[in-house]
Amino acid sequence: MGAFAVEVSIVGAGLVGCLLACFLARRGHAVTLYERRPDPRRAGAERGRSINLAISERGIDALRRVGLDKVVLDTALPMPGRMMHAVDGELTFQPYSADRDRAINSIGRADLNRTLLDAAAALPGVRLCFDHRLTSMDVDSGRMVFQTPGEPGTVTATAPVIIGADGAFSAVRAALQGRPGFDYSQEFLDYGYKELVIPAAPDGGFAMDPGALHIWPRGHSMMIALPNPDRSFTCTLFWPKADFASLTTPERITALFAERYPDALALMPGLSDDYLRNPTGHLVTIRCAPWVVPGGAAVTALAGDAAHAIVPFYGQGANCGFEDCVELDRCLAETGDDFAAALPLYQERRKRNADTIAELALANFVEMRDKVASRVFLAQKKVEHALERLLPGRYVSQYELVSFSTVPYVEVERRIARQRRWVAAAGAGIAALAAVAAIGGARGRHK
Amino acid sequence: MGAFAVEVSIVGAGLVGCLLACFLARRGHAVTLYERRPDPRRAGAERGRSINLAISERGIDALRRVGLDKVVLDTALPMPGRMMHAVDGELTFQPYSADRDRAINSIGRADLNRTLLDAAAALPGVRLCFDHRLTSMDVDSGRMVFQTPGEPGTVTATAPVIIGADGAFSAVRAALQGRPGFDYSQEFLDYGYKELVIPAAPDGGFAMDPGALHIWPRGHSMMIALPNPDRSFTCTLFWPKADFASLTTPERITALFAERYPDALALMPGLSDDYLRNPTGHLVTIRCAPWVVPGGAAVTALAGDAAHAIVPFYGQGANCGFEDCVELDRCLAETGDDFAAALPLYQERRKRNADTIAELALANFVEMRDKVASRVFLAQKKVEHALERLLPGRYVSQYELVSFSTVPYVEVERRIARQRRWVAAAGAGIAALAAVAAIGGARGRHK
Repeated sequence: MGAFAVEVSIVGAGLVGCLLACFLARRGHAVTLYERRPDPRRAGAERGRSINLAISERGIDALRRVGLDKVVLDTALPMPGRMMHAVDGELTFQPYSADRDRAINSIGRADLNRTLLDAAAALPGVRLCFDHRLTSMDVDSGRMVFQTPGEPGTVTATAPVIIGADGAFSAVRAALQGRPGFDYSQEFLDYGYKELVIPAAPDGGFAMDPGALHIWPRGHSMMIALPNPDRSFTCTLFWPKADFASLTTPERITALFAERYPDALALMPGLSDDYLRNPTGHLVTIRCAPWVVPGGAAVTALAGDAAHAIVPFYGQGANCGFEDCVELDRCLAETGDDFAAALPLYQERRKRNADTIAELALANFVEMRDKVASRVFLAQKKVEHALERLLPGRYVSQYELVSFSTVPYVEVERRIARQRRWVAAAGAGIAALAAVAAIGGARGRHK
Repeated sequence: MGAFAVEVSIVGAGLVGCLLACFLARRGHAVTLYERRPDPRRAGAERGRSINLAISERGIDALRRVGLDKVVLDTALPMPGRMMHAVDGELTFQPYSADRDRAINSIGRADLNRTLLDAAAALPGVRLCFDHRLTSMDVDSGRMVFQTPGEPGTVTATAPVIIGADGAFSAVRAALQGRPGFDYSQEFLDYGYKELVIPAAPDGGFAMDPGALHIWPRGHSMMIALPNPDRSFTCTLFWPKADFASLTTPERITALFAERYPDALALMPGLSDDYLRNPTGHLVTIRCAPWVVPGGAAVTALAGDAAHAIVPFYGQGANCGFEDCVELDRCLAETGDDFAAALPLYQERRKRNADTIAELALANFVEMRDKVASRVFLAQKKVEHALERLLPGRYVSQYELVSFSTVPYVEVERRIARQRRWVAAAGAGIAALAAVAAIGGARGRHK
């Protein structure tokens, strides 16, 4: 616990904002959470815009530290591997880990958000302000202006510590972006995404195996499906934007699914309606620096997607945001809850890691939509898992380190690079030995 | 001339906006130029914020096409090379070109802007609106809202073609940036810049040789100076931001100049005042895509710094922006003045070139502040110029192609890469021949 309670304003009561409020309140700080939307525990959840989450070790570790791992995992569905769907309907299961008990966990964003909101609200010192949209802020004084419903329509607040956890299109970051010296980039993929549904089967059960993340890899595009507790699956199409734009009638939608996703089409009675109703989302990578900007009377920092929005293909967006909270908590512990010292330390430790997972997530899209359909790739994965069992703790796959450990992402990348060089050298050595043996054999025959 | 006159709104009456207005008006289009500042021909020029321009072949070529090359070059001062100032006061002149008649031309931004404004205003169909600050625009309808002085304080206008030529912090680009799919990055150097002055000598003449761009290369920082028609020099410091921040008293400013720029200090009576009064500018590279966004009833495009702000170290910012105007004029000619076809073509041809010069400009900073102080580097440049004279038209330096040709920047980069491989291969061949000769010689001696 810190010696002095600090007034912290967190903008954004999404996953990262709520979890961060829990961490800070447990350290004795007074946290006000501002959220532009109404309380989601009263209003209905937004549908059709959020990819299901796959919570893995980094996220679970963060939840464990605030005592929320069990309640969250209770409603989650474990997915120990990928189920690939070929066009002819053939299924291939590929475990994520050499240890088949390890799984990533499917969970709905809205459910998880409600759980975290309840947890934050239950802690002393946490105040929730819904329907507060940040419209401007002054970084030097820590003064924030919020738009609110009804009269007078605006609320002003000031805090010595402001943390923007308000997502990829962060209003806090927008206030920093105009300052000279603030590096910023937003990079979109030429791909969009769209959510669809595979409802529960007529008998009330799952229409497919719920113990897997389902993938329909189709080279330049793909569909995935994650199970939900109500026995439906949330499907997500990842297609080139041009493909979405050109597919606009129920007849053509059905025809395309009959050709490319025939086994799924049979399970999607509402396909055309869902397709035409749901919006096409965009996939963006956002990088910025610095994440921490000291002003005269306040310090502003960014966390989660506001600091580092990444594409969803490694299932690490929320996990990485949760790790931000763990690291900030650790930095506060190391600095005696001195935010002015802890926040720059947090930035120094997290920024490189966020940059690394952004790259890994982009690279994994190619693996998911294309490589997993290849027999060579699947054979490589089997060899990899065999190596992992043969050399436990010495040979570990990238997926294993990203999803089933809390080894920092930069360390994962370094370790995998070393491992690849080592395997290449070992392979070359084996080939050389084989060549020597072959030459020896040939000479022997000539004698 | 186009078959149909089109109403074009250009936002920003800086260098690129004015030159573009000239090109479009000469094609018969009706151009309205909106500028947020007052008419600079009436108000005084802003001082202390703009590096002198070095206009070279690309810029001159553009001016020539609208008949403005002679009037602009009349007031410009040719700089055929660099003059390096060592700490001990030793001077070294290095010509920019093997052909010593070729020069880049020092010119004040404000003077050039006034000349271009006069030229645009003199053309039929051009309307100038000063004191119009764009506050919002709707890309689909082409509706723009401007803030103006006095009552009612806003003006609304609509145009089927809107071109943002409003600089690095473009308001037109800001309207595009919120659209999904718009890639954007702003990247600052850890360096700032500050303008200083070397006034005319007591006898009314130049205090240094006006036939050169003067450089004080000091490893991690530098100062440059360009001559002005009033016989003063505009000096610009390029220092790490931390150095500016730490130097805040007249005594320390003078002491530092005495140590690092002693020959310049003797020529700068107003040094401390200038240093403390003038702001520290920032150096940013801005990249974005697309540059052209079609709406329902309008099309919006970007040109000049609004599309591609670059650092000033290759002296190509304005030259590159002027090339944008030439290319757009060419695309209009090729498409029969169909803006909907010409603008995407313009983007396709210019975007890669702008990306290339952005990289070359960043790389040239290292050359200017560090390498030019090295004897090895100066010797290399002499060899390079000798090769150019030996193999005219076959061996051409990068600086020559960038500054004294209109070869597209991407083509320059490709050609230089080819040339380097060729020189390396030739060097290796000569070394091999020498080795063979040496071995032959050694064998001869052993016989």
